[in-house]
Amino acid sequence: MANSINDSYQDFPILDQKVNGERLAYLDNAATAQKPQQVIDSLVHFYEHDNANVHRGVHTLAERATEQYEAARTKVQHFINAKNHNEIIFTKGCTDGLNLVAATYGEQNIHEGDEIVITIMEHHSNLIPWQQLAIKKHATLKYIELTPEGTLDMEDAKRKITDRTKIVSVAHASNVLGTVNPLKELAKIAHEHGAVIVGDGAQSVPHMPVDVQDLDVDFYAFSGHKMMSPTGIGVLYGKADLLRAMPPYQYGGEMINTVHRDETTFADIPFKFEAGTQNIAGAIALGTAVDYLEEIGMENVEKKEQEIVDYVLPKLEALPYITVYGPQDPAQHTGVIAFNMDNLHPHDVATALDAEGVAVRAGHHCAQPLMEALGVSATTRASFYFYNSKKDADQLINAIKATKEFFNGGTI
Amino acid sequence: MANSINDSYQDFPILDQKVNGERLAYLDNAATAQKPQQVIDSLVHFYEHDNANVHRGVHTLAERATEQYEAARTKVQHFINAKNHNEIIFTKGCTDGLNLVAATYGEQNIHEGDEIVITIMEHHSNLIPWQQLAIKKHATLKYIELTPEGTLDMEDAKRKITDRTKIVSVAHASNVLGTVNPLKELAKIAHEHGAVIVGDGAQSVPHMPVDVQDLDVDFYAFSGHKMMSPTGIGVLYGKADLLRAMPPYQYGGEMINTVHRDETTFADIPFKFEAGTQNIAGAIALGTAVDYLEEIGMENVEKKEQEIVDYVLPKLEALPYITVYGPQDPAQHTGVIAFNMDNLHPHDVATALDAEGVAVRAGHHCAQPLMEALGVSATTRASFYFYNSKKDADQLINAIKATKEFFNGGTI
Repeated sequence: MANSINDSYQDFPILDQKVNGERLAYLDNAATAQKPQQVIDSLVHFYEHDNANVHRGVHTLAERATEQYEAARTKVQHFINAKNHNEIIFTKGCTDGLNLVAATYGEQNIHEGDEIVITIMEHHSNLIPWQQLAIKKHATLKYIELTPEGTLDMEDAKRKITDRTKIVSVAHASNVLGTVNPLKELAKIAHEHGAVIVGDGAQSVPHMPVDVQDLDVDFYAFSGHKMMSPTGIGVLYGKADLLRAMPPYQYGGEMINTVHRDETTFADIPFKFEAGTQNIAGAIALGTAVDYLEEIGMENVEKKEQEIVDYVLPKLEALPYITVYGPQDPAQHTGVIAFNMDNLHPHDVATALDAEGVAVRAGHHCAQPLMEALGVSATTRASFYFYNSKKDADQLINAIKATKEFFNGGTI
Repeated sequence: MANSINDSYQDFPILDQKVNGERLAYLDNAATAQKPQQVIDSLVHFYEHDNANVHRGVHTLAERATEQYEAARTKVQHFINAKNHNEIIFTKGCTDGLNLVAATYGEQNIHEGDEIVITIMEHHSNLIPWQQLAIKKHATLKYIELTPEGTLDMEDAKRKITDRTKIVSVAHASNVLGTVNPLKELAKIAHEHGAVIVGDGAQSVPHMPVDVQDLDVDFYAFSGHKMMSPTGIGVLYGKADLLRAMPPYQYGGEMINTVHRDETTFADIPFKFEAGTQNIAGAIALGTAVDYLEEIGMENVEKKEQEIVDYVLPKLEALPYITVYGPQDPAQHTGVIAFNMDNLHPHDVATALDAEGVAVRAGHHCAQPLMEALGVSATTRASFYFYNSKKDADQLINAIKATKEFFNGGTI
C-alpha cells in the first residue's frame, strides 16, 4: 500500500498509462472508480485458492468461501456503522437495492392517495422506481426543488413532506451538482410524519464517513464499483425490523426455510433477500476495498477531495466561458463538478478533453428531470476521487483552455 | 491453453492444491465451476487497463469498456445460437433471469384460473417464482412427475400441459438426478397449447451444446459462474418480440429513452432490462469463458464428461451400500451424481470425503419437493466437469470405501 494518500495513485495500475499520447487524467469517478492492486489481488487470490459456492457446502473450499463472504458483510456493517450484520444485504449494485425497496416495502406500503417524496436532483435509479410505483398505486410523487444556489430547498422539503407521505427517498450526494444533502435532517422530518426514509449513497459512501445509525435512515443503498470494488456488487442497508416485515424480492436457493409443492417459508434476514448464488468474489473484494478505505481513513478521503475542489473549482469558475452547476462555494461542493462551455456541446467538450488524456463524462448523467430544472439538455462532468491530484486538476484546466482555443480558431 | 481437454486441469490454478493433506478432487461443479487462468487474466487485464463505465462515456476507456462488453454479448449470442444479440440480457445469475421472467412476463400474462406447469425436479429458483406468482394470481401450479427411472414422465407432461397452460418452465438438466430433459419436445407441446416455455439452463449450458433456436424455447436462463466465469453474472435469452412486449423489471440508468417528472419511456432491448451499472468485467470475462469452451468444443466437453460418468457410475452402483438417484444408465446421466450411503447422513459423508480431499455437496440441493418425491431428506452429490479426470473419480470411490470402513469400524 502507498505510504500516504498523496501517492495512493501508485496503487492503481490503470492510471499509469497514456491515452491519445497524453498522460491519463481519470476524472470519471462518479461513473465508476478504479481498482487498487489490493482489490485486484483479492479477486485473483479467491479464484486461485478458495473459490466455491457458499453456505451450502461442508467441504473445505466452501467453508473458506463462506467465511470470507460473511467476513465481508461484517466489514461493510462496521464501515457504515450498522447495528447488526444481518442488516447488510448484498445486491448487484445501488440500482438493484433501490428497486428492491420500491418493489417490496413500497409495493406493500404504498396505497392510493399516499405520497412519495423525492428530490429533483435524483439519479434515475432513485426516481423511476418511485415514479412507476406511484403510477401503479395511484399515489402521488412529489419533488423537493432546488435553491438558486443548487442546494436542496429545505423550506420546500418541509412543505412537501406531510402526514400523507409514506416514503422519502433522497440522494445523500448529487451525481451532478456536487451537493451533499442534509440527510439526517430529512430523516428527522420524515419520521415526524411517520414516513420512512431511503438514502441513495452511491455518491456518498465512497467519499465521506457515513454512519447509518447517526443519520437514522431506514434504508440506504450504494454500489461497490464506485468505491473501488469489482462491478456487479452493491449493498442495501435496512433496519432489521423493516427488512423482516418485508416480502422477499427474488425467489430461489438459500432464501428459504422449507419449500413444499404449494407453499414456501422464507429464511431470516439477510438471506431472505439473497436468492441464488450471489457475487461471492465481488463481495469479498468489496471487503478488501473497505479495508483499503479504512486504512486511509474516510476523513482523509473527504479532506483530500476537498483540497482538490478548493484548488480546481475557483480556476474553473474564473474561466469566463464556463458555467459551473451546483454550489459555487468549494466548501459546499463534493468532487463532482458539472459544467458547460459556451457554445459547445458537452459531447464535443468531452471528446476534445479525451484527446488531451482527460477522461470526463458528458450527457444528462441519468438525471433528466434535473437537466430540465437547470434548463440544459446535458453537461460535461469531471469527478475526482482521493487518488486524483492537483496534477489532474491542472491537466483538466489546461485541456479546457486548449479546447476553447481549438474551437475558437486560436483565440481564447 | 492446455494442449488437449485431457490436460485442461493445468489451466485451473486452484486445482493444484492439497486439502486436508490430500490432493484436491473438486467434484462440486454443479454448485460452481472453477476458473481457468484465461478467465482470471481477463478480469485482471480489464481492471488494469480498460475499466470504465459503459455506453454513457465518450472517453477512450469508456469506449474500450463498451466495445468489450458488447462483444461479450455477441459471443454469448453465437454460443447459444440466438438470432440477435439484442436477445441476450446480462443478469446477476440464473436465479435473477428466472425471477425477471416471472415478475414481468408472468405478472403480465398470468391471470386467475390460468395454469403454470413445471416439473418436480426443479431447483427452487425455477419453482418458487412460479409458485408465488400462482398464489398471487390465483392460478394453478402443476408439477410433471418422474418415471421410476428418474426421468421426466412425458405421458404426464402431455396430461398436465393443456390449453389452460400459459407458461411451462423446465430445467434442461437436473441439478440432482443428472437427467437431461427433452426440452425441444416439451417446447413443441407447450406451443401446441399456446403456452410459452422457459428453459433453466444452469446445468446444461456449461456442459453440452445448446441451440436456443433449435430448441425453440421462448426464454432460457443460465449462470456464468457455473461455466467458469466470475460470480455475479448470468444471461437471460428471450425471443425479441416477447422481450419487447414485456414491461421492464428494474428501473434506473441506461434503460430509458426519456424521463420526465411524471412519466418515462423505455429503451429498446436489451437495454430495457439492464438498469444501472451491470457486472461489466463479469460479462467480459464470461466472454472469455465462452472463448475457452468454444476452443475446446462443447461436443468434446460433453464427450469427456460422458466418459467419466461411464467410468464412475458403474463403480458407484456396484457398491452395495450406495443408492444412486436418477437414471442408472450412464448414457442417460450427466456428470451430476446424487447418492446416499446406507445408515449415514449425507453431511457426514461429505465431511468424511472432504477429509480425503474430495469436495462434494450434501443437502437438499435447493430441490426440496424433489427430495420429498424421492423419499429422502438429503443426498450427497458429486458433480464432474470436463477438467476432472478418472483420477478424481478413483479418488471419490476410494474415499467412499474409506468412509464406509471408518464408520463400520474397519469392516466394509
